[in-house]
Amino acid sequence: MDDKTMVTVAELGRMVESIFMRAGFNAQQAVAIARIITAAERDGAKSHGIYRIEGCLRTLAAGKVLAHARPELIDEGSGVIRVLADGGFSPAALDLGLPVLTARAEKLGLAALVINDCVHYSALWPEVEALAERGLAGLAMCPSYAAVAPAGGVRPLLGTNPIAFAWPRAAAAPYVFDLATSAAARGEIELLARAGKPLPQGWALDAEGTPTTDADAGLAGALLPFGGHKGSALATMVELLAGAMIGDLTSQSALDELGSLDLAPRHGELILAFSPARFAAGRPADPQVQAEALFDAMLGQGARLPGQRRLAARARAEAEGIALDAAELALLDRLQREGLAALG
Amino acid sequence: MDDKTMVTVAELGRMVESIFMRAGFNAQQAVAIARIITAAERDGAKSHGIYRIEGCLRTLAAGKVLAHARPELIDEGSGVIRVLADGGFSPAALDLGLPVLTARAEKLGLAALVINDCVHYSALWPEVEALAERGLAGLAMCPSYAAVAPAGGVRPLLGTNPIAFAWPRAAAAPYVFDLATSAAARGEIELLARAGKPLPQGWALDAEGTPTTDADAGLAGALLPFGGHKGSALATMVELLAGAMIGDLTSQSALDELGSLDLAPRHGELILAFSPARFAAGRPADPQVQAEALFDAMLGQGARLPGQRRLAARARAEAEGIALDAAELALLDRLQREGLAALG
Repeated sequence: MDDKTMVTVAELGRMVESIFMRAGFNAQQAVAIARIITAAERDGAKSHGIYRIEGCLRTLAAGKVLAHARPELIDEGSGVIRVLADGGFSPAALDLGLPVLTARAEKLGLAALVINDCVHYSALWPEVEALAERGLAGLAMCPSYAAVAPAGGVRPLLGTNPIAFAWPRAAAAPYVFDLATSAAARGEIELLARAGKPLPQGWALDAEGTPTTDADAGLAGALLPFGGHKGSALATMVELLAGAMIGDLTSQSALDELGSLDLAPRHGELILAFSPARFAAGRPADPQVQAEALFDAMLGQGARLPGQRRLAARARAEAEGIALDAAELALLDRLQREGLAALG
Repeated sequence: MDDKTMVTVAELGRMVESIFMRAGFNAQQAVAIARIITAAERDGAKSHGIYRIEGCLRTLAAGKVLAHARPELIDEGSGVIRVLADGGFSPAALDLGLPVLTARAEKLGLAALVINDCVHYSALWPEVEALAERGLAGLAMCPSYAAVAPAGGVRPLLGTNPIAFAWPRAAAAPYVFDLATSAAARGEIELLARAGKPLPQGWALDAEGTPTTDADAGLAGALLPFGGHKGSALATMVELLAGAMIGDLTSQSALDELGSLDLAPRHGELILAFSPARFAAGRPADPQVQAEALFDAMLGQGARLPGQRRLAARARAEAEGIALDAAELALLDRLQREGLAALG
């Protein structure tokens, strides 16, 4: 409302890119990071937008991410393509792997991209959405750092461990969801703590492992998985497939190495790509027809498709620009001019 | 307690096999079905044990499963192996595909088994457990028939859509879970309805789409997904990957074709296999070491691993036999002697 400034998506992208260049990142890293942060801001996903920039720069200042990382692709022609992120942020590694993953999934029907040794701050939905825009279904997951108690447990062990999925649609933007396997994000609890408000039941345990609705007690204790033992099982699967199996860190090891919940953690990521054309080859039913009938039936009974709000924000941003308030603009300006020194 | 008879796992297996032979199934179908039903009974998973036999036979009597089905393997050397189940039950199709799936996952790092045109009555955990016993991680899913309303919806559309996962352990039985993406199974609601008890909040909607704790109203309405919109998104993913993508039926189409919630539905299934050895190749971290550290930490804080109760029941059954009551024995006996005529 009051004193918002409109910037175009491209303008914001250039600002974010120049912040990361000014802080010392090489162009490969800066371009990839800026695109992901700008996409989140464009889609109204503020929690993964420009809000994340300072955390990324603090991670660099703490020596926990490599500004000059050069991701390396390892491809032996199998179904598993690996990118060693070289201690850089994940987006540059993904950019390197995505074309190979796409081609391999089209050839074999499915393929996996393993990213190792990456530092992670971004949402997974842009990654699977990129696959769906190439006509593939995508399923991505990664650990984070120990913050969530397993069902029946009392202490943090699992990460918030997101699972993201995208399905390609011929005549619409992809069907995309990206869900944390925790009942809530740590950031949501921090907001309630600052506002002095209670937590909903089922979000957190206190430091003694007892369920609590006190936000400060929850921050000192552990988050809980969504959906009880089922969500806990899915979060454990993420640790196993996207941590242990790919020869990378679990959420507990990532926290042990990082020693802080305030910096971006280093671990790996698993992205699966599926070719519906190959999976349905020779079958009478058309995947697109079946899927569209499902979406129509959902919308027809008043259910929403996940991502509808994001897509609406995207359309608005592309037509009218992104609205930034004075504080946001001042921050972007200061980070561009002062680099890491702006962190104070 | 009172008048239980102990039968060995092998004895029960032969009884179940002879029931399916007597009912007219060919040996390939009968052997595979009997093994899965017996495994469930052995593991104390009564809801998928001998309790299921009558439903299977009723499905045959209704002409909705083919007793003489001969599954056919289609393998073009890619990452996707297909078995056309020929309208038979799923276990025989799985038996045909499993060795090829294993070999392909070991070669490519990952592979998928698609089962099409199968009739489904069994749990998914025996399937992924079989993969883990071969040293692979397994992830399986399938639709069922429309019984669950999507989050925000008012009518049945999704199935109870299970997701099962198994992880191979070097010195212990595999880590296995098998979870319905609905808050509860229809059978659980039927039991509460018969007992005249109320439903927990969040299990069901009535026929008008309003949340209800009345069990009869819930049976006339719709089940709800577990975990709100997150469970709903995962259930939708199952429809897309294991229904639409593989050129087979969604839960709504399966119900439309079957016309009944009392018979076993016909649809497809998707089983993914991953080779941890290939996924971790060249990495410093050992998947087994990381995974065992995770399990130790879970158990160390009082959390259980899924399947612990099943494994305990299995050990008991293998040492002491399976306890059947008089009614169960009488039923098995009658089905062996009378075949489909025993259904009355």
